[in-house]
Amino acid sequence: MEQSKNFVGIDPGSVRYVTCLGAGPIGAGWCAWFLARGYHVTSYLHAASEEASLRAVIDSAWGSLESLGLAPGASRDNLRCTTDLADSVANAQFVQESAPENLELKQELYARLGALVAPNIVIASSTSGLPMTDIQANCPHPERMVVGHPFNPPYLLPLVEVVGGKKTDPEAVRWVTAFYRLAGKAPLALAREVPGFVATRLQEALWREVLHMVLNGEATPEQIDFAIVNGPGPRWAMMGPCLTYHIGGGDGGMAYCLDQFGPALKLPWTRLEAPELTADLRAQMIAGADELAAGRSYATLIAERDRNLIAISKALKG
Amino acid sequence: MEQSKNFVGIDPGSVRYVTCLGAGPIGAGWCAWFLARGYHVTSYLHAASEEASLRAVIDSAWGSLESLGLAPGASRDNLRCTTDLADSVANAQFVQESAPENLELKQELYARLGALVAPNIVIASSTSGLPMTDIQANCPHPERMVVGHPFNPPYLLPLVEVVGGKKTDPEAVRWVTAFYRLAGKAPLALAREVPGFVATRLQEALWREVLHMVLNGEATPEQIDFAIVNGPGPRWAMMGPCLTYHIGGGDGGMAYCLDQFGPALKLPWTRLEAPELTADLRAQMIAGADELAAGRSYATLIAERDRNLIAISKALKG
Repeated sequence: MEQSKNFVGIDPGSVRYVTCLGAGPIGAGWCAWFLARGYHVTSYLHAASEEASLRAVIDSAWGSLESLGLAPGASRDNLRCTTDLADSVANAQFVQESAPENLELKQELYARLGALVAPNIVIASSTSGLPMTDIQANCPHPERMVVGHPFNPPYLLPLVEVVGGKKTDPEAVRWVTAFYRLAGKAPLALAREVPGFVATRLQEALWREVLHMVLNGEATPEQIDFAIVNGPGPRWAMMGPCLTYHIGGGDGGMAYCLDQFGPALKLPWTRLEAPELTADLRAQMIAGADELAAGRSYATLIAERDRNLIAISKALKG
Repeated sequence: MEQSKNFVGIDPGSVRYVTCLGAGPIGAGWCAWFLARGYHVTSYLHAASEEASLRAVIDSAWGSLESLGLAPGASRDNLRCTTDLADSVANAQFVQESAPENLELKQELYARLGALVAPNIVIASSTSGLPMTDIQANCPHPERMVVGHPFNPPYLLPLVEVVGGKKTDPEAVRWVTAFYRLAGKAPLALAREVPGFVATRLQEALWREVLHMVLNGEATPEQIDFAIVNGPGPRWAMMGPCLTYHIGGGDGGMAYCLDQFGPALKLPWTRLEAPELTADLRAQMIAGADELAAGRSYATLIAERDRNLIAISKALKG
C-alpha cells in the first residue's frame, strides 16, 4: 500500500465519451459494442493505415448488433479515429485499452496514460494474461487502472472479467463493474488477481486435454469438436459446469453427484490431477449449487434446460 | 483374438423393435428418444414399481420431442414395460443397456444377454466409464457388444460415443454407427477404447480445474458458471475448441495461434501440465483445423459464428 487509494469516479451513468485504444479484433470489437450502445467513441490507432481494417470489423459487426437492437442514438458516425494518444483521451470518460499483449509495451503506454488521463477516469485493460499489478507498476495514478478482459467477439459475448492490481482502489473495480453493466456487458469482478482469470483458466484446462488427446492418438481435432458441439457444448451455452453437475444425477443434486462420482475423480481420465475432495470443498460446492439453483427445484431446472436446449437447437438449424 | 469375430447384422434401416434396459434418467431418456423416432420400445425394469418414474420422464420429455418434430407413427403407446429380461429382449432388433455403473452387475447382465439375444443383434451399453473389454469379458457372443455412450439428456443432445471392446467385431461398431445415425443421433466412433471417451475426458479436465479454483478461493461456483455461460459457453454450442482456436487470432488460423500462444502453454495457468508442442503435434492440429474449416475462409467462419451466436442469444432470451 505504498500509494494512497483515493479513487472517486464520475457517475457511471453519465459516461458518453469512451476511448478505445488499439485496432486489432478486440479493440475494434469494443468500438463496435460501445457505438451500438450509443456512446461516442474515439479510437486510438497506432498507425493511420489501421483505420480501414478497424472500420471493416465495425461494419461487419454492425449487422449483428442491429439485429440484436441498437441503443437510441447509436451510430457508426459517432466514431472518431486519431493517431495522437493525448488527443484520443482528451475528453475520455472511460478508456478501454486493447494494445498488444506485451508487458513492456503496456507499461510504457500506462506511464503515458497515467499522466494524460484525469485521475477520476478509469482505464481498463483487455489483457488476457498480464497482471494489472505489473502493468500499472510504473505509472502515475494507478489507483483507477483495472483489468477488463472481454471475450471474443466482444460485441457479442457479454463476459468481462474485472480485477484490479495491488495499487488499484477497490472503488475503481466497483465503478467499472457498474459501468460495464450499464453498457450492457456481464462483468465478473474477481476477489483477487488469478492468472488466466476464470473463463480462460477453464478453457485452458480443456485445451491442454485436447492437445494431449491429439498427441496420443486418442481423438482427432475433428472428433473433439464433433463431441463438444453435439454433447456438452449446447448445455454450456446456458448452464455452467456447476449447475450442470447439480442436475446431472437426478434430484439428489450436487451432494449426490459428489458422493457418487467423487471416487471417479481418482481415475486417470484426464491428465489433470484432481484435488482431494475434502469435507470443506464438498460443502463449498454444495452451497454454490444451492445458490445457483436459487430455489428452483430439480424438475424446474430440467424443464428450463430442455426448453433452452430446444431453442438453441432450433436457432442453430434456422 | 481368442474368439472369432463374425458379426453379421440385420439391415439397420429395418429395425423397428428396440429394447431399453434400465429406467434411470438415461434409460428413460433413451426410451423417449426411440419412441419419438417411431420405434416400438420395450423397457426392461428391475422392479415393476419403476414404471411410474419411467413414464414420468418420458411424459416430461415428450413435449420437447413434439416441439422438435416426431417421426411418422411415433407414439408413447408404442412402449411396453416388463420385469422379465428374457421377455424384454425376445423380439429386440437392437438393445440399449443403461443399467447402473457397476462392473460386476454389468458382467452378470451381459452373460445373460449374450445367451438370450440372437447373435446378429447389437447390444450397446450407455456406460460412461466402464470399458467394453471388461463388460463383455465373460459372456457368449461378445462380438456384437459395443459402448454407445449418450449425453444427458439423451432425448435432446445428439452425441453418442461408440467404441468396441477387445472381443467386439469392428463390423458391429460400423453397424451401430449406421443405426444411431438413422435413428437421428450424432454417433462418434472411436478408433480404440479411451477411458472417458472424448467428451467426458474434456468435461473432466474442466471440472477438475473448477474444483481446484473453488478449493483455492480463486472463484466461487457461481462465478465459474457465470463466466462459462457469458463467455466461452455459447461458442461451444456450435464450434468446438479446435475451430474456436483456429479463428481466435485472426486470419492466421491455427498455425498462427499455436506459434503465438504456444509459449503461454508453459505458464502455470491450469493445474494440467501441457504436452510439448512438437512439430508433429503442431502439424496435426493445423491439418485438423483445415479439415474443420472445410474450405471456409476466416471471414466466412466469423460470419457463421456471429450469426449463430445471435441466434443462440435470441433463443435464450425468448
